[in-house]
Parts: sequence; structure tokens; C-alpha cells
Amino acid sequence: MHLLSGVFEGKTTGTPILMILYNEDARPEAYDEIKDLFRPGHADFTYEKKYGNRDYRGSGRASGRETAGRVAAGAVAKKMLAGLGIEVTAYTLRAAGIGCETIDLSVIEKNPMRAADLAAAAEMERRVVALGKKGDSTGGLIECRIQWLPAGLGEPVFDKFEADLGKGVLSLGGIKGVEFGAGFGCVDMLGSEHNDNMGKEGFLTNNAGGTLGGITTGETVLFRAAVKPTSSIETPQRTINLRGEEKTIVTEGRHDPCLCPRMVPVVEAMAALVSVDHLLRLGAMRYLTDPES
Amino acid sequence: MHLLSGVFEGKTTGTPILMILYNEDARPEAYDEIKDLFRPGHADFTYEKKYGNRDYRGSGRASGRETAGRVAAGAVAKKMLAGLGIEVTAYTLRAAGIGCETIDLSVIEKNPMRAADLAAAAEMERRVVALGKKGDSTGGLIECRIQWLPAGLGEPVFDKFEADLGKGVLSLGGIKGVEFGAGFGCVDMLGSEHNDNMGKEGFLTNNAGGTLGGITTGETVLFRAAVKPTSSIETPQRTINLRGEEKTIVTEGRHDPCLCPRMVPVVEAMAALVSVDHLLRLGAMRYLTDPES
Amino acid sequence: MHLLSGVFEGKTTGTPILMILYNEDARPEAYDEIKDLFRPGHADFTYEKKYGNRDYRGSGRASGRETAGRVAAGAVAKKMLAGLGIEVTAYTLRAAGIGCETIDLSVIEKNPMRAADLAAAAEMERRVVALGKKGDSTGGLIECRIQWLPAGLGEPVFDKFEADLGKGVLSLGGIKGVEFGAGFGCVDMLGSEHNDNMGKEGFLTNNAGGTLGGITTGETVLFRAAVKPTSSIETPQRTINLRGEEKTIVTEGRHDPCLCPRMVPVVEAMAALVSVDHLLRLGAMRYLTDPES
Amino acid sequence: MHLLSGVFEGKTTGTPILMILYNEDARPEAYDEIKDLFRPGHADFTYEKKYGNRDYRGSGRASGRETAGRVAAGAVAKKMLAGLGIEVTAYTLRAAGIGCETIDLSVIEKNPMRAADLAAAAEMERRVVALGKKGDSTGGLIECRIQWLPAGLGEPVFDKFEADLGKGVLSLGGIKGVEFGAGFGCVDMLGSEHNDNMGKEGFLTNNAGGTLGGITTGETVLFRAAVKPTSSIETPQRTINLRGEEKTIVTEGRHDPCLCPRMVPVVEAMAALVSVDHLLRLGAMRYLTDPES
Repeated sequence: MHLLSGVFEGKTTGTPILMILYNEDARPEAYDEIKDLFRPGHADFTYEKKYGNRDYRGSGRASGRETAGRVAAGAVAKKMLAGLGIEVTAYTLRAAGIGCETIDLSVIEKNPMRAADLAAAAEMERRVVALGKKGDSTGGLIECRIQWLPAGLGEPVFDKFEADLGKGVLSLGGIKGVEFGAGFGCVDMLGSEHNDNMGKEGFLTNNAGGTLGGITTGETVLFRAAVKPTSSIETPQRTINLRGEEKTIVTEGRHDPCLCPRMVPVVEAMAALVSVDHLLRLGAMRYLTDPES
Repeated sequence: MHLLSGVFEGKTTGTPILMILYNEDARPEAYDEIKDLFRPGHADFTYEKKYGNRDYRGSGRASGRETAGRVAAGAVAKKMLAGLGIEVTAYTLRAAGIGCETIDLSVIEKNPMRAADLAAAAEMERRVVALGKKGDSTGGLIECRIQWLPAGLGEPVFDKFEADLGKGVLSLGGIKGVEFGAGFGCVDMLGSEHNDNMGKEGFLTNNAGGTLGGITTGETVLFRAAVKPTSSIETPQRTINLRGEEKTIVTEGRHDPCLCPRMVPVVEAMAALVSVDHLLRLGAMRYLTDPES
Repeated sequence: MHLLSGVFEGKTTGTPILMILYNEDARPEAYDEIKDLFRPGHADFTYEKKYGNRDYRGSGRASGRETAGRVAAGAVAKKMLAGLGIEVTAYTLRAAGIGCETIDLSVIEKNPMRAADLAAAAEMERRVVALGKKGDSTGGLIECRIQWLPAGLGEPVFDKFEADLGKGVLSLGGIKGVEFGAGFGCVDMLGSEHNDNMGKEGFLTNNAGGTLGGITTGETVLFRAAVKPTSSIETPQRTINLRGEEKTIVTEGRHDPCLCPRMVPVVEAMAALVSVDHLLRLGAMRYLTDPES
Repeated sequence: MHLLSGVFEGKTTGTPILMILYNEDARPEAYDEIKDLFRPGHADFTYEKKYGNRDYRGSGRASGRETAGRVAAGAVAKKMLAGLGIEVTAYTLRAAGIGCETIDLSVIEKNPMRAADLAAAAEMERRVVALGKKGDSTGGLIECRIQWLPAGLGEPVFDKFEADLGKGVLSLGGIKGVEFGAGFGCVDMLGSEHNDNMGKEGFLTNNAGGTLGGITTGETVLFRAAVKPTSSIETPQRTINLRGEEKTIVTEGRHDPCLCPRMVPVVEAMAALVSVDHLLRLGAMRYLTDPES
């Protein structure tokens, strides 16, 4: 990772920061045989339709490698948040049909699934490995908590906090849904169940997931993202080539049978970046209220 | 609805359009007794925290009335889409624990639930009315289809089509989740099940929900939004007032026990607006490619 | 002026403010005879080319009436600035060939030219009235001072303070140039003349006009805007109609022979709006530095 | 110049392009003695005030080196414009008190001043060299023409074509003013002189500089930018250091006594970038009007 601008003698200067990571293990020749084919689940078809000139090596811009830049930027954002006592933590909640039964944030970095439950993680991993050996892949669920965020973040109409956070997460390749607090579970709930009542000590529950009317409540912001099964699988699939001819395709290469472990830090990065963006807006408001600050 | 600018002799002039709707049935006095209380599930608490000066009448800016402007703008967007043969259709897919068993777009405007299945709609309505009489409310699920959208809409990194669409939908009060295509169902799917294979006739399935790599495929864009139960209920709830004192609250007024029927056109409006935004970007690209067009 | 949203019991709520002014003295019939003609100096031709459907009454969106909204928004901005002790003052510096010889801000609202020198104002007015009687018009120069703005406003690359301020002023119809500090006078200056030296008491001169490297210095931001002669004149001019036929045109109506007096408050409004925008950004930065503030 | 993304086999892919230029001749030690001093005319003072942590080597982000990125991006924009037959040409119009008497675009790259008049260029150069030897510098004037731009570029309110173009040019370090067409000359003109009349063949003059109401007319867009004298001079100047103590400073190093020759391509780049931005917007509009294109 090269830090090319915006830092001087170990401190940020306030001006734009440029970080760059070179892919030092590119194997472009690995993609020669798929340069004419649209891999199912990949963006080959849409890039061809949109741009008419496609870098087929490693999926070009649509590669998950693109998220490295988000993680790098997120690392800066997390430092800013840490200075305010705010923590962002994501983990695999479910994969290959196995869900965490307990949530222990201390074990996330101690298992290859980045799950929050060691026992569940072991079974997830066993299944994921077995699927990989069979040339298949699996989806999963990532949960993320933003803790100690102050109340008041988010704008009243379009730029609601969860709207911006949702956009950030949905801008990641492979994410097919996002939900906050009780999420889709709210569909079958009653108002008397879903509403978070309040007592002297604050909110008694957090079905809302940390926002009301698009603005943070001061409770933990809690959201989940649905991660689709890895598109690259060695199972034969039907597709067409650039000339519209039907073909069978087997996607080989270095692919994980479950994206969750790699996406956990990416989801954290996006949550950190959106949080900092909104903290910057909030600060602005406060300064005008109290110029002496 | 008053049309104040941007239209001349029945045609748009290309310059900004201003439409205005006056609330001619405001009853501000109905809110006097809750001006000191934070209604559970409402934005009263967060607006107080963020702004320190809150218009408690009718929820102020956080009111669902705000969506009238979105529907008005969406009506213009839908006219533009219609000129291109693109259709946006939303409907209640589930409410009060009852889901549509068939999808018949022709019945949506023929039942008060705006559901896509008349038989299911009748049972939904029965349950919703019963819940309202008991002073409670229920959540629901809205599904939306954008049909005949061309391939190629959406930008490769942050402004993916579903990221912008997701933001648009999550910017609506009461929406707690959004999912595309197979959505959260992908969590427990295998890659060999989820990948949409292709044949000469195009995509054989549409688990992706109409996008790959954030760019539209030309298939129907399909998404669902989770609608929380109406926050205003007549069931007594615990809350606090501005001075932090514990209180019991009963929220009376003109509240629907299920938000779905009112939100169906709002979800359509947001889908139409985001589609037009991205069509404008696509057109730009084409013009530079072919200046004679 | 109607205040439709964002204010409650005399105080802003923090949510969007909508103000509306109805044109209660529109005379659309006055424009009937020019509906097919492109008035020289007006946007009739470019609106026709761009949009193909033109509201010819009162110049449509290209009318100077559009600036009323800017002045209304600027009034809010000026209140915010006043709370920080910041003042924005514009005045006519030159018109009809007569320039102010002294600058006395207290006389600006005491003469119809809004000039900063009463003696000059009298001669300006005499000449402007004479030109109007002859069916002609004149250009002029507006100068504006933003005083007591803190150091540190403006971003390092594209959003330099004078770039945003320049854009704001150049977005006004009729402005053909903008310059800061010594402005175009710098062209023939030496570095040893133009550089503002510093002593213990701060900057010894202000040729820079209150910014260095695009960021405010804490000195007065000083700029001037060139105002073109009113386009509507009763002197016969050559033009063409929608069918390309050559015509002679005389533009009658309620036109001022010099735009400066009306544009002084508009220039002030734009300067206030840009200043508030940048103060909001600055505040954001400060909050992250000192979250206790 | 390294091209790191967005190009594949010699053609753009439509996705973001990253170009990078390494400064291979940095001499950071040359700045050691000024690390505590605020150089007159430089951004040292404002960066210190805004950020509190300043990279004093080579002026950090405020260095003219930053414009290399603009020229690189501008080169891409110029290729796009060339495909549409649009040309952007800037040149030194005046420097060291000498102005071009004729405009010959073919000689610009044939003289070190990048002036449009060879005879004037020789005298400019002689004076500039002499000023450099005396440890002083001079300002200058750059003129730019955007030729064959179609009518219809620019938005009706804030994003007028000259507002965006003005912002682009004023975002360059060292530019203190910008004017369009007759520019500040309009101040003393009559409406009957300034208005561009029209005949069958189009506009008879171009005092407007290629826009009316903020939208391009199809005539040449003509603007001029005031370039301040180089701030770094070897003439002793008064300043203060970080502790507020008065000092005398002599700025040595590799400084040009006139910035114009280096800024001519930068002004061209900004004009090309703004033109492409607005062409992208225009294309969007056309596509919706005629989806078959």
C-alpha cells in the first residue's frame, strides 16, 4: 500500500489522500478462454452492453478487487471514528445454511469465516469447503453494528442515514439486499411489537436499528446485508458468447466458495465512510450554532 | 395541485418545474397534547436531538405527507418513461400475515390494499380493519417491477443502479429493508441455483433482479421493500416527555393500520425517478459516441 | 413573500425552507409581438436552440425575476452570517462612465444607483436617465466586500473559495466578468507590487482580495462584477425571427437603462450564500477536531 | 505518465481512468529554510490556519504541480472534443506590459511565451527575462477560444455555461479574474453597442463571448483570465514566521518570472473539461427526445 499524498510526517494535512495498491499477482492469461463468453452471475454481459469495450481480465472494474480501495479509505474513516469513541463491527451471521447462535464480537478475527460464533463458524467452514470441492458456492448474511454513534445523524428527506448507508452497502458487488433493525421481520409484526418504547434510561428495545425518521437515535445502528453465492463456480453452466452462440462454461480460477469472510471488512469500511460523511455534516450545523466552539 | 413553472402551453419548457400541493385539511390542534411527548416509532425524539426546535404538528417534515411531492415528480418521470415504453408497477405483496398467491397486475387498483391478488387482498383487508379496531397496526411487503428498461443503466462503482434505487426507496419513511431479485433468499442458495444462465433467447431466470455488476441487464428490475407497522397506534405505550419523565401515550388521529396501500404509488414514484436519472446519464454517453444522433 | 415550510413559531426547524413570491403584476400580453423574434442580448435564441419550446412571456426562466429567489435565500444566509459577525456589502462602483471617487458604505441605500459615493451617484443617475430617454442603456461595475470572514474557508483544489464565489456571481444573468482584489489590474503588476507582505499586525495590503491558494486569509474578501448594458432597448436593432427572416426590433416595456441598482442586492445574496456554504464545511472540520464543542 | 486503469488494448473501457505522474525531480531540502515562514503571495498562511499541519515542501497541495493532473485529464477531454470537431485554444495575450497586436493561433507553440503574436512574444520574453534577473516577476493575460461548440450547452439557473467555466478557471492557483466576450469592457458600453445583432447568416458580432442567458449560442466561446505575478521572487519581502515574529524573506528556487506560458495548457484543459461535462448533459437530453438515436 503506497500513500502518495495528503500525509506529512505521519499526520494528515487535510488535503486529499491518495493510496494505491498494485495487484502484484495478476494472471491475465487465466482469462483468455472466457474473453468471448458471458460468465453467469458476472457483469460481462452488462459491461459489453453498456460500454462495448470490455476488459475481460479479472472482471475489469467489476472485480471484487475494486473493494480494496474502499477498505483503505475505510481505515482512515475508522481512525476518525475511533477518535470519537465510535466502533464499527461486521461479521458473518449465516453461511451455507448455518447461522450464529450467539454473538461474540471477540471471536470474529479468530475464525476463517469471520463469524461471531466459533461453534457455528466451524460447521460453516466445513460446509463451505465441501461445496468448493464440489465446484459450487453458497450465499451468506453479514451483520454490522455501528456503536456509540451520536443521535442526530441523517438528513430529513432524501439523505436519511439508512438511505445513504443502504446505498453504500448496495454499491458493493454481490450484495442483493439490506435491512435495518428488525428488517424484513417487520413485515409480519404488529405496531405494538415493533415500536421501540422509551423509559427514563432511553429506548427499551431497538427494532428500528438505530434510526427514527432517517436520523440516528444514539442506539446502535444495526443492519444486515444479503451476500449472493460466488458467481464463479466449476459446475458447468449454460451461457452464450459474443456472437450469441450457446456454450457451456466452467469458471476456474482462485475463487472462494463463500464471499462473506472477504466482504466483512468491506461492509465495515462502507459503514465507517458513511458515518464519517454524516458526522461532517452534523459538525457543520453545530459550528454555526456555537461559533466559539 | 398547482403547476407554477416549467410548463408553457401544455408542454414542458426544459427548465425547472415547480408543483405545489396545499394541505387543505390540516388539523394542527390535534397534536397539542403530544407536543411534549416522544411518540414511539416516530421521529419526534430524533428531530428534537438533531434540531432542538421541532414542529410537532403532523410530524413536521417527517410526516408521510412529504411523499406527495415525490409522487408528483414521479408522475412526470413516468410520462418520460412511457415515451420510451418503460413501465413501473408496484403492489402490496404481503400484509397482516397474508401474502399474494398469484400476481395479477390488473387488479392492483381494484382493491383497497393495492395487492396483486384479489382473494388475498380481501383477507388482508379484513385483518387490517380488525387490527385497526383493536388499536394496533401491521407491517407489509411491497414489490415493484420496472419493465422494458434497456440494458446498460448504472455506473460501475458507487452509483450502481440498485444502489441508487435502494437509496431512493430507503429514503422513504417506514421502509426498513430493500432486496433485489431473489433478495435475502440468496443467503441459503447455491451458486448453481442463483446464477442466471443464458440461452439464445437471453437470460433463462432472473434471480439477479435485473442487474449484474450494478448495471441493468434488460430483464425486469424486481425489488421488494419492507414496510414497518404504522407507528401511530391507539394501544397504550411507554414513552418519555421533553423533561425525561415517563409517560403512557395513546396516539389518536387519522392513521391507517397498514401503510402499504399508501406507499405503493410512492415506491413507484421513486423507482421512476431513479430510472429517469440513469436514462439521462446513458443518453449522454450515446450522444458522444454518435454526435449525428 | 410566503414562507411555506421550515419555520415554526418564528424559528427555523432545520428542515428545508420554502419561500415563494408570486408575480402579481405580470403582463404576458406585452410580449405577444416578440414571440417569434430573437431579441438581441436576450436568451430567446439559446432557449429556442436548447429546448425547442420557449416561454416568451417575460423571458421565462431567463428573466431577471428569477433572482428574487436568490435574494430571499440570501436573506436567510445573511441572518446566519450576522450571528457570526460577518457582513456582506455590495454597491455600484461605476455606471454610465462615472465611477465612485470615495467609498462610503452608509450612503448605498440613500441613492437610487446604490452607489457608494453620493456625488458620483447623482451624476450616474443623470446620465442613466438621459440614456433611457434616448432608448439606450449602459453597463456598470458592482463591487462587493465580505468582512470579518474567518480564515480557512475554501477547499484546496476545485472548490477554492473564489472559484465557488465566482461561479455564484457568474450564474447571474448579465454578469460578464468577475475579479478578486487587484483583479485584472494584476496583469501589469510586478510580483514585488502585488504580493501582500505581512507584519505583526497581519497583512499590510490586500491585493489578493482576501484569499491565498483559494482559502480565505481573514482579510476582507473583495470582488467586482462586470454588469452588461440592459439588453432591452428601444433603439431599433437587427434580428431574425423563428423562420430566419431578417427583422428590425424595438424592445419596449418596463426596463431599467442600467441593471446595477437591482443587481447590488442579488450580488450580496450570492456572496452570502457561498459564504454560508463554506462555513458549513469549515464547521464540520472543527467538530471532528473537537467533538466536545 | 502512467495509465493505471480504464484503458484496455488502446481504447477506453468506459470505467474510471487513473493517470499518475511521479515528480522525479523533487528537491524537498530546498524548502527547509521556509518551513517556519509564510511566503508572501503563497498559501502557507492559509493552509496553516485551515489545517494546522502543513507540508511546506514545494507548497504541498497548493503547488502549481497539482495542475499536471488537470492537463492529463484535459488531454482525454480534448480527444473527445476533437471527435466532435470542437477545438480549444489558449494563448498569452499580454505579459510584462506587452500585448499581442495580432492573433495568429499557428505561432503559439513556436515561442516560449505561448503568445499569439511572434513580434510581441519576443518583446514579452525580453522583459520577462530581465525581470527575472532583477529578482522580480510579472502578471499576464491569457485568452482562450472554444470553437465549434454547438448551441445549447449550459443550464438555465446556477449551472450556466460561463458559471461552470468561470469556476473551472478560477479554481486554478494564480488566477484573479475571468471575463467573457467584451468582458469588463461592457462596463462602459451602451446597450446599442454591446448587443449582438443578428442577420440571416447568424450573429453579426460576438460581444457576448458565445453565450446568452448562460447557454451557448454556437459562436466561439471567448474568455480571458488574469494571471497574477509569480509569488516567488528573490526581492526581499516582509513577512512573519509561525511564532508571529517579523522576518525578511527571499524566495529562491526554480520559479518562472511569468506564469502565463505554463498556464496556457492548464486553462485549455479546464475549458475542455467543462465543455465535455456540458456536452454529456446535452446528450442526455437528446436521447430522451429521440430514443431511436
